[in-house]
Amino acid sequence: MTRTVVESQSRTVTIGFDEPFCVIGERINPTGRKKLAAELEAGDFSTVEADALAQVACGAMVLDINAGVVYNSNPNPNETEPPLMVKMLELVQGLTDTPLCIDSSVPAALEAGLAACNGRPLLNSVTGEEERLEVVLPLVKKYNVPVVAISNDDTGISEDPDVRFAVAKKIVERAADFGIPAHDIVVDPLVMPVGAMATAGRQVFTLVRRLRDELGVNTTCGASNISFGLPHRHGINAAFLPMAIGAGMTSAIMNPIRAVEMEAIRAANLLMNHDAHGADWIKFGRVLDAVEAGTPYVDAARAAQDAGAGRGGRRRRRA
Amino acid sequence: MTRTVVESQSRTVTIGFDEPFCVIGERINPTGRKKLAAELEAGDFSTVEADALAQVACGAMVLDINAGVVYNSNPNPNETEPPLMVKMLELVQGLTDTPLCIDSSVPAALEAGLAACNGRPLLNSVTGEEERLEVVLPLVKKYNVPVVAISNDDTGISEDPDVRFAVAKKIVERAADFGIPAHDIVVDPLVMPVGAMATAGRQVFTLVRRLRDELGVNTTCGASNISFGLPHRHGINAAFLPMAIGAGMTSAIMNPIRAVEMEAIRAANLLMNHDAHGADWIKFGRVLDAVEAGTPYVDAARAAQDAGAGRGGRRRRRA
Repeated sequence: MTRTVVESQSRTVTIGFDEPFCVIGERINPTGRKKLAAELEAGDFSTVEADALAQVACGAMVLDINAGVVYNSNPNPNETEPPLMVKMLELVQGLTDTPLCIDSSVPAALEAGLAACNGRPLLNSVTGEEERLEVVLPLVKKYNVPVVAISNDDTGISEDPDVRFAVAKKIVERAADFGIPAHDIVVDPLVMPVGAMATAGRQVFTLVRRLRDELGVNTTCGASNISFGLPHRHGINAAFLPMAIGAGMTSAIMNPIRAVEMEAIRAANLLMNHDAHGADWIKFGRVLDAVEAGTPYVDAARAAQDAGAGRGGRRRRRA
Repeated sequence: MTRTVVESQSRTVTIGFDEPFCVIGERINPTGRKKLAAELEAGDFSTVEADALAQVACGAMVLDINAGVVYNSNPNPNETEPPLMVKMLELVQGLTDTPLCIDSSVPAALEAGLAACNGRPLLNSVTGEEERLEVVLPLVKKYNVPVVAISNDDTGISEDPDVRFAVAKKIVERAADFGIPAHDIVVDPLVMPVGAMATAGRQVFTLVRRLRDELGVNTTCGASNISFGLPHRHGINAAFLPMAIGAGMTSAIMNPIRAVEMEAIRAANLLMNHDAHGADWIKFGRVLDAVEAGTPYVDAARAAQDAGAGRGGRRRRRA
């Protein structure tokens, strides 16, 4: 049974075929968020703090931390990202015991993050690009952490799902050469926008099943890509996530601060028999009651979190 | 390729693996609707008319017609149902060209309905019960119509999905003895409430896949059963339907007058590549825009239907 273990200092989250779907909160990322980028350059971490707490309240089980900001004062990410990554990780792990995901395309930022992060973070990411494999896999081995493997290589992102499967297989095999087991690799089969490629949804469902059956790996994706460019994106995302979960997808990097997607995931957990006695669904139902009564989702989720804090919360703690 | 053809006098709906999900509107059914039952006994068909038109506007592709009312003046359904079924069918097929589904547990009502109905209605239903097989299959053969096959038999409804599969297989085989092809059988694998049976969702997903792969049949279900007894049922239904569609379910008998379930189905059609160029999704998006602006869903759907009427509507007409 494939189990990918991600840990903070005091909490364990397991990504697996028989586990509730793992929601990896994507908000702490300055890419495309100019205001956040400017704040980070100015040394203001208030948005990072707020995003961390809000995402956890809304059900994020892992928090992605991306420090990929281009400073006006210094455009070289090899110099700016590693210290910023360390700063952000230290800040967030001081605020919450939710496990973290170190997200960067700068190898020095990945390594600095690994040195600074408590527990067993998820590393995001390796690809099938030769240079990337040679740099990232030794870090994965050295720090004994799980890694997200994205299915593109030196030829780019293929529109052919068989090629993307082959890239994933190559990464798994190359990792094995380093002594990294398949259960520490979480493959992102790459989600294309269904508005641009009509087969995009079916590609993902088929790929997830193959990745699981043939390679025995867990899977993740940037879920909201599926609806890019189309109206009523949340409705598409909220159908895509249960369908992907039914096909075997075990995690997604996504925005948890949206009730409709989180409702879809919790319903899918219930329907996959990953929510014993419907306890999570019933608890989430009280959040939905508050939302229907007019409370914003984040506030309702936070109130439910605070009410549950004295009773152990919704996640298992380490023994 | 399995294609189940259902027709009114002038319109064809195809249920199939490569077709948009077929929504069979369930509203015209006095079971559990005391007010409607009393109206029908009094000869008042205004609710039937309103339900027919509202369901079609909301996206029903087939309308189920059930005349299973127990009159206060005459408790014998063998006497009351056949003429009432004929009356209701004639009324509804005079109002709309949407194909119909003749739904009764009274064989005389099925036969009276078949004689009265134009086109090629869906018959609902045969089961694996011996008496039912012997009475209904000859009607299916005589009138050359497709039939819903429910996976229970003389031993009742099994909680074991393998038994329910075996019952479905028996019905398909028995039908073959009558010369009825598998593509004219739409199997209902029976959906249990997930609140009472934690494996209910997974059972359906597995069964649908087996029924499709091993028997080559289309499938249907009473979708809302899945959420019986739980809070926020529409959220569960709206995740269940895309997951069932992803597993291969091709139709459901359901209430189309709910935006959330219909949005989930239309998104699933898009994600299954059963909505060319996203045309249906984009059109439905305008209905959602109106709902978000405060218009009740039925009214918004009706306005969209009226606006589209001059442009040929959303369904294919027969050549």
